[in-house]
Amino acid sequence: MGKIRVGVAGYGVIGQRLADGVALQGDMELVGIADIAPTLSIRALKEKGMPYDLYLVEGADKSKFDELEIPVSGTFEELVDKVDIMLDSSPGGVGEKNKEIYMEHGVKAVFQGGEKNSVADVFFHGYANYEKGVGVDYLKLTSCNTTGLIRSVDCLDRAYGIDRVAITIVRRVADPGDYHRGLTNALQMEKAPSHQAVDLMTIMPHIEATGILVHTPVTHGHIITVVASGKKKITREMALEAFSNHPRIRIVRIDDGFLGNASLFRYARDLGNPRGDMYEIALWEDSIVETGDDIMFAINIPQEAITIPETIDAIRAATKMQTTCEEGTSETNKYLGIGNWK
Amino acid sequence: MGKIRVGVAGYGVIGQRLADGVALQGDMELVGIADIAPTLSIRALKEKGMPYDLYLVEGADKSKFDELEIPVSGTFEELVDKVDIMLDSSPGGVGEKNKEIYMEHGVKAVFQGGEKNSVADVFFHGYANYEKGVGVDYLKLTSCNTTGLIRSVDCLDRAYGIDRVAITIVRRVADPGDYHRGLTNALQMEKAPSHQAVDLMTIMPHIEATGILVHTPVTHGHIITVVASGKKKITREMALEAFSNHPRIRIVRIDDGFLGNASLFRYARDLGNPRGDMYEIALWEDSIVETGDDIMFAINIPQEAITIPETIDAIRAATKMQTTCEEGTSETNKYLGIGNWK
Amino acid sequence: MGKIRVGVAGYGVIGQRLADGVALQGDMELVGIADIAPTLSIRALKEKGMPYDLYLVEGADKSKFDELEIPVSGTFEELVDKVDIMLDSSPGGVGEKNKEIYMEHGVKAVFQGGEKNSVADVFFHGYANYEKGVGVDYLKLTSCNTTGLIRSVDCLDRAYGIDRVAITIVRRVADPGDYHRGLTNALQMEKAPSHQAVDLMTIMPHIEATGILVHTPVTHGHIITVVASGKKKITREMALEAFSNHPRIRIVRIDDGFLGNASLFRYARDLGNPRGDMYEIALWEDSIVETGDDIMFAINIPQEAITIPETIDAIRAATKMQTTCEEGTSETNKYLGIGNWK
Amino acid sequence: MGKIRVGVAGYGVIGQRLADGVALQGDMELVGIADIAPTLSIRALKEKGMPYDLYLVEGADKSKFDELEIPVSGTFEELVDKVDIMLDSSPGGVGEKNKEIYMEHGVKAVFQGGEKNSVADVFFHGYANYEKGVGVDYLKLTSCNTTGLIRSVDCLDRAYGIDRVAITIVRRVADPGDYHRGLTNALQMEKAPSHQAVDLMTIMPHIEATGILVHTPVTHGHIITVVASGKKKITREMALEAFSNHPRIRIVRIDDGFLGNASLFRYARDLGNPRGDMYEIALWEDSIVETGDDIMFAINIPQEAITIPETIDAIRAATKMQTTCEEGTSETNKYLGIGNWK
Repeated sequence: MGKIRVGVAGYGVIGQRLADGVALQGDMELVGIADIAPTLSIRALKEKGMPYDLYLVEGADKSKFDELEIPVSGTFEELVDKVDIMLDSSPGGVGEKNKEIYMEHGVKAVFQGGEKNSVADVFFHGYANYEKGVGVDYLKLTSCNTTGLIRSVDCLDRAYGIDRVAITIVRRVADPGDYHRGLTNALQMEKAPSHQAVDLMTIMPHIEATGILVHTPVTHGHIITVVASGKKKITREMALEAFSNHPRIRIVRIDDGFLGNASLFRYARDLGNPRGDMYEIALWEDSIVETGDDIMFAINIPQEAITIPETIDAIRAATKMQTTCEEGTSETNKYLGIGNWK
Repeated sequence: MGKIRVGVAGYGVIGQRLADGVALQGDMELVGIADIAPTLSIRALKEKGMPYDLYLVEGADKSKFDELEIPVSGTFEELVDKVDIMLDSSPGGVGEKNKEIYMEHGVKAVFQGGEKNSVADVFFHGYANYEKGVGVDYLKLTSCNTTGLIRSVDCLDRAYGIDRVAITIVRRVADPGDYHRGLTNALQMEKAPSHQAVDLMTIMPHIEATGILVHTPVTHGHIITVVASGKKKITREMALEAFSNHPRIRIVRIDDGFLGNASLFRYARDLGNPRGDMYEIALWEDSIVETGDDIMFAINIPQEAITIPETIDAIRAATKMQTTCEEGTSETNKYLGIGNWK
Repeated sequence: MGKIRVGVAGYGVIGQRLADGVALQGDMELVGIADIAPTLSIRALKEKGMPYDLYLVEGADKSKFDELEIPVSGTFEELVDKVDIMLDSSPGGVGEKNKEIYMEHGVKAVFQGGEKNSVADVFFHGYANYEKGVGVDYLKLTSCNTTGLIRSVDCLDRAYGIDRVAITIVRRVADPGDYHRGLTNALQMEKAPSHQAVDLMTIMPHIEATGILVHTPVTHGHIITVVASGKKKITREMALEAFSNHPRIRIVRIDDGFLGNASLFRYARDLGNPRGDMYEIALWEDSIVETGDDIMFAINIPQEAITIPETIDAIRAATKMQTTCEEGTSETNKYLGIGNWK
Repeated sequence: MGKIRVGVAGYGVIGQRLADGVALQGDMELVGIADIAPTLSIRALKEKGMPYDLYLVEGADKSKFDELEIPVSGTFEELVDKVDIMLDSSPGGVGEKNKEIYMEHGVKAVFQGGEKNSVADVFFHGYANYEKGVGVDYLKLTSCNTTGLIRSVDCLDRAYGIDRVAITIVRRVADPGDYHRGLTNALQMEKAPSHQAVDLMTIMPHIEATGILVHTPVTHGHIITVVASGKKKITREMALEAFSNHPRIRIVRIDDGFLGNASLFRYARDLGNPRGDMYEIALWEDSIVETGDDIMFAINIPQEAITIPETIDAIRAATKMQTTCEEGTSETNKYLGIGNWK
């Protein structure tokens, strides 16, 4: 089997990171990326010397790219024609339209959380339901919060069995650099139950989930608290042991200097990670407490990069590169350098 | 029985509001307030024409007050000498020293949450343990978060019986006008369990409580989510009914425009409440969800004014003005105008 | 001359304060306010017992008000029919449409900064060009920043003559309670010159002005630095003397505790001002510095209430209640309690 | 001449970047870094595989490093003994004590802005006074704001001659990851004139400078507005031409998507710059305006990395690697990749 050929539609916050993640996979080839306008991200690509080939979607004004001397490799359809699978990180709703082009060309696709569930055959998470995605043409990834949340819940579920979770999402309201949305000195409620709890139940139908979401005016990572009811009592030690063994969960401590989401962002920058990104969720050891027979803990979700590993898992599942969660996630982790630090 | 004579030590964020609250009580007399320096609060008192008499604590430099033509009515001991009970809202730790003066003068006192529990004979909440405070000399109030949290938990406990709560506190990190503390673009964790959960168990020892606290960079009100396990299943309707009947709980809805803590602050300003304060906690009707046999909901804690009603309850209990929770809280509510809007 | 009858269109952040300000004028009668939906502001009006009569503009769904038992006194046209002058603080652009109704009814009007200049015969400021507004039917007020800025520049101009100003506006991006706009951890540039500098030149055509505006993620007051070139050298002492004599300028010092815009908001709350509002701009004594023959200083603009006095001045000018700046602003100041503290 | 051997004292926000910058210089050798505790930065160094050797300053508890299996190469004095020059980015005041060790060992040093001017023989800026630093033993760098500000003022001064500047600094209050300082919903004033204006006059004594500084609750880059008076009138075009030719100034436009400091941080992350850092200041083309004979403009100061190039210039000057500004800054720029994008 040759390298799987991958394209990325939409070169924004997620698309850039998908492209970088795919480029790191030894068994995949990043054919190119597609976008509509010379955004800052495209300008940065140009300033870096065009490491990825750029294709233009319908509606793009090529003259604007020419003016900036940004080389264009072709049209969106030409990109789709060259690949085995597309990663679609277009703005919400656009992916649904793109799907028609993918179907015409007989190309598989993985959509991000902004699309409706109906765009895909399977709503996918690399750990919780990898096998359901094997050989499937159209997958949709869980959103950033749900992806990280499920990692932690699935981790406990595999180890001890989980019946029920109640979550509180302390949500970052914007990404660094966002000017089109933001909150100033305000917390904002959303109606309960939060969609993340509902999405968790779709992926893990044997678990009852609910939750409340509060937006907060910060940009570096969501924090979620989870109250989980196990099939039997899960002690603090049992929870910590399970979490410690998960390659995509990083155990941190306040006493070590990990005071909050901003410490984690700074740490990732100091690690030299591109863009200061982190693929792992962080789990505070000093947040784990027992309540009756339930266990409660807090995790940090680095929203910009968190879905990259699971999206690459989705490529592996859809194209049958690996047919089990164990094998698929291991290959993704290996190429992304996840778990090396353990 | 004549009017109970009350003094306030420490004219800061809490002290100012205590003084205003006492001044509204028809059966109490605010004798005066005490502070150490011509802070902005004291300057504002001066600009308003000195509605309250000012006494100076030891260490104050009277010449600074003279320079600003701020009239001084005497020393702290002179104030203590004139009152039946002191409300001590001095900076944390100072209350403990002041207690010696109160004891010398045979004066009762109510301390705020910043003092150690050991300063008082009873750790007090107007609803949850009013009767324990009756006739007692030294009471300590619960802190702002705990005060509001207990209102809601006690409300359900009285109606249906509560065994266990797990809370997530989304904490405002500073008050409006604070320059000595603050967070910028960061969420900050505290080690679990949060002290508020521990304090709740001290006040309500029949309940098991734990929780996680996250500081957020906002100034207008904490938001707490509560997962409560009842002695029997509590439905959404049952919870809403109990909350709706509580005079110090205000039911709000996102659809009505109460989007978060900042909406509540704006609403209180538009109501014409002094300083834009609110004595009630808000509880979002659209946050109440069932999870298994448990009930989950979210409340807003207006941190600056929330402890005022319960502190005035404490005066009533300590001085035996009223000897039951029902009678004591009703008088407080009447004079503060709480529940008029229902 | 009987009391001038005034109506307010648009009961939002500005409209509420206009209504309150007019209600304080001994020689004016607030006939009523008009709005389109039961917003939080209208709900607060209801909870306060409807101190002002409410009229509904076209497009309002009266049944929604009935459902909430909010009494409605009539239609917008009925309000216009009862008044001598309307204060229009509708959302930007709506005032222009309302003007047709005002013209039909032969009613004067004062528009706020959100409307185009062309809506009015005179672009008005209570101090800088009061006399131009005398007897005029349609006036437009300067926006919040421009209103406060002109106070300070006009003050120096009257005393010593000003040729040129270069300003930097450090702008608060939202009001407390705003959820429809906000910035999170970002400063945002606007293209120079800022409209405030351009507006200043329209009002004071003998002065050359330019400036740069930076949005900041705060809610309590803009800060503007001004570099002013006088006809002759203006020293620090000369500037301070002129500012100190202006009734709508409050001199403050960092050493007294006025550390920034949030200190001023807290001070206004502690003063007991409704909503924590302040009609005066603050000017930091410790910000005044000389640079060559120029003078530089910093002012604080409390954006929610700053235009109220000048808008009331506009009523006085338009209706010829007073025909000079001196007389008109004095009456406004008297009824609003401005300058009492000096 | 062999490679100049360099050590770094204090491996914090600045120290890490100094180490990385030196490591990129083909004609320098980074011998090692020194610190006192296993901070997050040191833990990140460990996780990266110790690319730099670590030495411990007096007072460090080596057992804590051993526990974490962080290899230690020796003591601070041992490091000093191996180098030609130390870059001291210790906390403010510590550098002064370290200087005694440097003097004992006959080692030159460059201090950062947190130290008093008296610690050094020359207060240094790579462009404004390079030649004054040639062969000097102890240099102190200008602080981040002053470094960037001087770049822009020196640029105009060289081209056209500058007599006077009046600046407004819109200052970011903390770095990403800072929990020891922060502001929440507040702007904070400092007494004028700001130290940056005073420092500029120390470096460029022929210019009169003053200014006002306002702290704002953001973390990604200061913004400074400058009103500069030239020896003759400087037009918009003249200013833009001079700025465009400066290798350490990047011209940006709002229309291109550079809306503010957060856009620049995002752009640097997307460029793949380590930590999302930027060595250049940005200057908004659409902020340049004329005012009388003066010119006004706005620049962005990426506070974490801005002093790195000038500090490396200081090594070159102090050790006489290059004896002119032209040669010294060119070598620094070459190795840091500055100006490649032009």
